[in-house]
Amino acid sequence: MTHPAATPSRLRVLTGDTPTGRLHLGHYVGSIENRLAFQDVHDCFFIIANTHALTTRAQQSEAVRQDVLQIAIDYLAAGIDPKKSTIFIQSEVPAIAELTWYFAMLLGYGRLMRNPTVKDEIVMKGLGENYSFGFLMYPVGQIADILAFCADAVPVGEDQVPHIEMTREIARRFNVTYCGVDSQADDAAHAEAGVFPVPQAMVGRVAKLMGTDGKNKMSKSLDNAIFLSDSAKEVKKKCSRIFTGRMSATDPGVVEGNPLWQYHDVFNPDRAEIDDMKQRYRAGKVGDGDCKKRLAEVLNTFLEPMRQRRAELEADPDRVMEVLYEGTSRANAVAEQTLWRAKQAMGFDFFPRRVQVQIKRT
Amino acid sequence: MTHPAATPSRLRVLTGDTPTGRLHLGHYVGSIENRLAFQDVHDCFFIIANTHALTTRAQQSEAVRQDVLQIAIDYLAAGIDPKKSTIFIQSEVPAIAELTWYFAMLLGYGRLMRNPTVKDEIVMKGLGENYSFGFLMYPVGQIADILAFCADAVPVGEDQVPHIEMTREIARRFNVTYCGVDSQADDAAHAEAGVFPVPQAMVGRVAKLMGTDGKNKMSKSLDNAIFLSDSAKEVKKKCSRIFTGRMSATDPGVVEGNPLWQYHDVFNPDRAEIDDMKQRYRAGKVGDGDCKKRLAEVLNTFLEPMRQRRAELEADPDRVMEVLYEGTSRANAVAEQTLWRAKQAMGFDFFPRRVQVQIKRT
Repeated sequence: MTHPAATPSRLRVLTGDTPTGRLHLGHYVGSIENRLAFQDVHDCFFIIANTHALTTRAQQSEAVRQDVLQIAIDYLAAGIDPKKSTIFIQSEVPAIAELTWYFAMLLGYGRLMRNPTVKDEIVMKGLGENYSFGFLMYPVGQIADILAFCADAVPVGEDQVPHIEMTREIARRFNVTYCGVDSQADDAAHAEAGVFPVPQAMVGRVAKLMGTDGKNKMSKSLDNAIFLSDSAKEVKKKCSRIFTGRMSATDPGVVEGNPLWQYHDVFNPDRAEIDDMKQRYRAGKVGDGDCKKRLAEVLNTFLEPMRQRRAELEADPDRVMEVLYEGTSRANAVAEQTLWRAKQAMGFDFFPRRVQVQIKRT
Repeated sequence: MTHPAATPSRLRVLTGDTPTGRLHLGHYVGSIENRLAFQDVHDCFFIIANTHALTTRAQQSEAVRQDVLQIAIDYLAAGIDPKKSTIFIQSEVPAIAELTWYFAMLLGYGRLMRNPTVKDEIVMKGLGENYSFGFLMYPVGQIADILAFCADAVPVGEDQVPHIEMTREIARRFNVTYCGVDSQADDAAHAEAGVFPVPQAMVGRVAKLMGTDGKNKMSKSLDNAIFLSDSAKEVKKKCSRIFTGRMSATDPGVVEGNPLWQYHDVFNPDRAEIDDMKQRYRAGKVGDGDCKKRLAEVLNTFLEPMRQRRAELEADPDRVMEVLYEGTSRANAVAEQTLWRAKQAMGFDFFPRRVQVQIKRT
């Protein structure tokens, strides 16, 4: 299978997911729908970051393995086309671990600990001092995930922007340290003379989708998510329980900051219908129940084709493994090339090597 | 080339050096002479830890490369036999970087920071808060250096014993977490049912050789070292400058804590001569000069065969690269097997793979 490579007009794009469970609507609007558009115009690499998943689930590695397969099914069901894009498993690309180590040498410990996302996660997850060293390696590994593929652009959620900032710093520092690029050089000069381009973060059209609790960002761990793989019945039930804060159908409803309306805005293609419903909602002339019922229909129309593709894929696990195998082979070809160029720049090009993954046929 | 593998009677031994310069007498008695004995009876792997060298010399990677070759020449000149032992380059064994990441997930951040050797180094090198994240990865990488080869025994300097303690903890934790080994199991049960044996530290016969300054441990960075590759003239000069604290040839000399006599004790095979000289030294009947001159002769007799082998090897750099290539190939064969077993235990055995290093023939 030949894939068109990155060219000046085709950006190399890297993004992906840490397999912590199935994907939900927040992932879809934050990232997946961007990928569907990108795969037609860019050279896309989608990483399933199973090593990162161990930061919080080192004891549940078998569950992480299952989630890798579930994420792959979600990708394919959502319409990511392995003929256009490269879907691969992080742990099966050794160059990522090797680059992580080299980049760690260029990253100040203090700089890492001042990364606001790292600080927030320590607070949010109530870790105190009780986290693994691997937890701190997460943002460093993410730098390698991106730079191993010489990505120009990284579609991410807004909470990940500080990591991309750090990635940009390290790309520059590597190029300055080992390739003689001037420390004042601009991004174009880095792309030209360095091993690594300086990647850009791209935030999706909906930076933050609220959860059904109406309080937090949609998240598996907060039990406020509608999954791409939920059944029509589950979607209906979850919609009926969306928290809107409204006490009665005749109360004037508030539309702003209300997940019911955020979901309509994002997923209901009928603008006129939304505008009309919102007006009646504000005036206390339509109940939550009707708007929620309509939302469930909208979401189920949107999710039904995915459910069908998912059912096909679940019946054919070999097909999913084949996609991951082909993607991982291709990812290794690119990452090995990057690693070799990095090692050449460092004078660590002792021995050329070949890395070949194989597939276990059942 | 076939090497006899580890068997119950042949231990698997892993040790090595971080290439921070040429080897000196402190390395020799602390570790190299042990290796010469071990290579005849055990299955030995000697790592040249060039990635670790970047913790303090990330900006001087080309110098690290040169030091890798110098260390390899030192090994061969000292009598390490590549037909018996495996000499390899750390950066060329990807499984080490991958295992580093997995082990980081099992190592508490607090536990790492309480490692006395890490704390001492931060103080000794005056790092304050100014160290790279890679500096903290050093002990984690060392765990992987050892466990990638399922080493039973690790000959180390005494300052490295805390790292071996941590390695033992992580071997146990991996086996308990992923192989179902009981947390109360003894070392034999771990070797039997786990992926990793629980390795033992072995400290050499001279745990700490003093430097020529008479104050500190012999160390390249303190400018108090006699190198295995020093010329006869350099050795003579360095011997003449050994600090003994004695003011005149007729003063009663102190033997204890005096590097002049530690060197005689360690390198002069003529016990009777040493005892006689020490007696006269204590009585103020022999000058420092004579004892130092005699030491220089002893050391030069000891070093001369190494110098000759070194000269031959320096004239044949391809031979050195060939040794490193064959060792690295063999190291990868073993480390890949270990990694695969670890991934099987974790359920991360997605794709078998082959890693093959090649040699650049000039």
